[in-house]
Amino acid sequence: MPPRWQDWVHVTKLDPDRRLPPGAIDEIATSGTDALMLSGTLNVTRENLAGLRSQVSAYGLPLVIEPAGPECALQDGIDLLFVPSVMNTTDVRWIVGTHHAWVLDGMRRAAGSAQAAIAWDRVVQEAYIVLNPDSAVGRVTRSVCDLSPESAAAYAAVADRYFCFPIVYVEYSGTYGDPAVVEAVRGAVDRAVLYYGGGIRTAAQAAEMARFADTVVVGNAVYEAGPSVLRATVRAAR
Amino acid sequence: MPPRWQDWVHVTKLDPDRRLPPGAIDEIATSGTDALMLSGTLNVTRENLAGLRSQVSAYGLPLVIEPAGPECALQDGIDLLFVPSVMNTTDVRWIVGTHHAWVLDGMRRAAGSAQAAIAWDRVVQEAYIVLNPDSAVGRVTRSVCDLSPESAAAYAAVADRYFCFPIVYVEYSGTYGDPAVVEAVRGAVDRAVLYYGGGIRTAAQAAEMARFADTVVVGNAVYEAGPSVLRATVRAAR
Repeated sequence: MPPRWQDWVHVTKLDPDRRLPPGAIDEIATSGTDALMLSGTLNVTRENLAGLRSQVSAYGLPLVIEPAGPECALQDGIDLLFVPSVMNTTDVRWIVGTHHAWVLDGMRRAAGSAQAAIAWDRVVQEAYIVLNPDSAVGRVTRSVCDLSPESAAAYAAVADRYFCFPIVYVEYSGTYGDPAVVEAVRGAVDRAVLYYGGGIRTAAQAAEMARFADTVVVGNAVYEAGPSVLRATVRAAR
Repeated sequence: MPPRWQDWVHVTKLDPDRRLPPGAIDEIATSGTDALMLSGTLNVTRENLAGLRSQVSAYGLPLVIEPAGPECALQDGIDLLFVPSVMNTTDVRWIVGTHHAWVLDGMRRAAGSAQAAIAWDRVVQEAYIVLNPDSAVGRVTRSVCDLSPESAAAYAAVADRYFCFPIVYVEYSGTYGDPAVVEAVRGAVDRAVLYYGGGIRTAAQAAEMARFADTVVVGNAVYEAGPSVLRATVRAAR
């Protein structure tokens, strides 16, 4: 059974390209965070994934992969695959193109079967609204990031009610976002689970965004302030 | 209550820009077709819509609008709004951009409320796969139309299982399509209702595409061969 991702309040996002100090995984796993998300997959190998899996499985912590591109299939030891589509990109590849390549690749490995191409029961679709133009994701996806709260809310409503994405993800990637934007998005999201990610480094920031978002994501702070900061953001988000 | 569009086998698509001979609507309405779809809305005015509505309502025939752009809100006398998104376009406007403008416009008319912006209970989302590069829709959306059956099937699977569109629409717009493509798409669509549209002018063609598609759409033939051809395509599709 896939874990109940809908109930998560706090997710820790790890970058497989960055090193954590010894003991960090233990500290993360006992922080109270609801899940570990590996974002970007270029450096996720069978070997380091297996190592990470064995570290977290002892704690029963769900492990999610959020692929950067279609090269990633669902691998052993991964509970869920969170697959993003960027609502405010200017490049169709980041809405539907890489997804097409991903399914086509899966079909070829499954002797042409679209049903067997992907383990759909473990895929969770994410509608990203990318809001930091200077971040890697902002640059790579060439997203239109200077959105008013109202305009961001309209993207969120399209994601929630037109595309019926189960997750709407407000992504400030590395910078702390504008609470007015997140509040406006909250007002527009009726059915989806609302994620907020970007620049959360303190408990006060986690609490502020958790007023609007169902789930807050903490990433860089783990590397910068160390994993002990996680515990404070977890407490604040709940 | 919106009509049960999921059960339709045959839909007649009318172009508000083209004139039908006197008595044509009566002949269409008694042909056995399940619904009338008005596609493109530039020349749909309150006046001609009201006229059409009064003609078809006597027969209890559902009336659907499929807007060409965000200028169209759901108007009185329209049962459903079928809103397309083009999977194989190269221009984000035709996947998400016009939809964003549509919702933003609705929010402004609804004092900022995304929930009140659109009558979502009467919106049906369509994932178009556009396959005729020389058609107006092919040109305007700059779609990549030279798709193998396998590649079209992969778009269909993405539409069906990643975006969860309730309709996947194979659109050959004016030309009769490749049954091998429609068959491949059929094999990839698990949950959505599969529409086929394009170039159906005979009962044999309607029957051929109805082997794979749940719903066949007949349009130009109504203007070219006259509405009497409809009856034959309806019989063949059932």
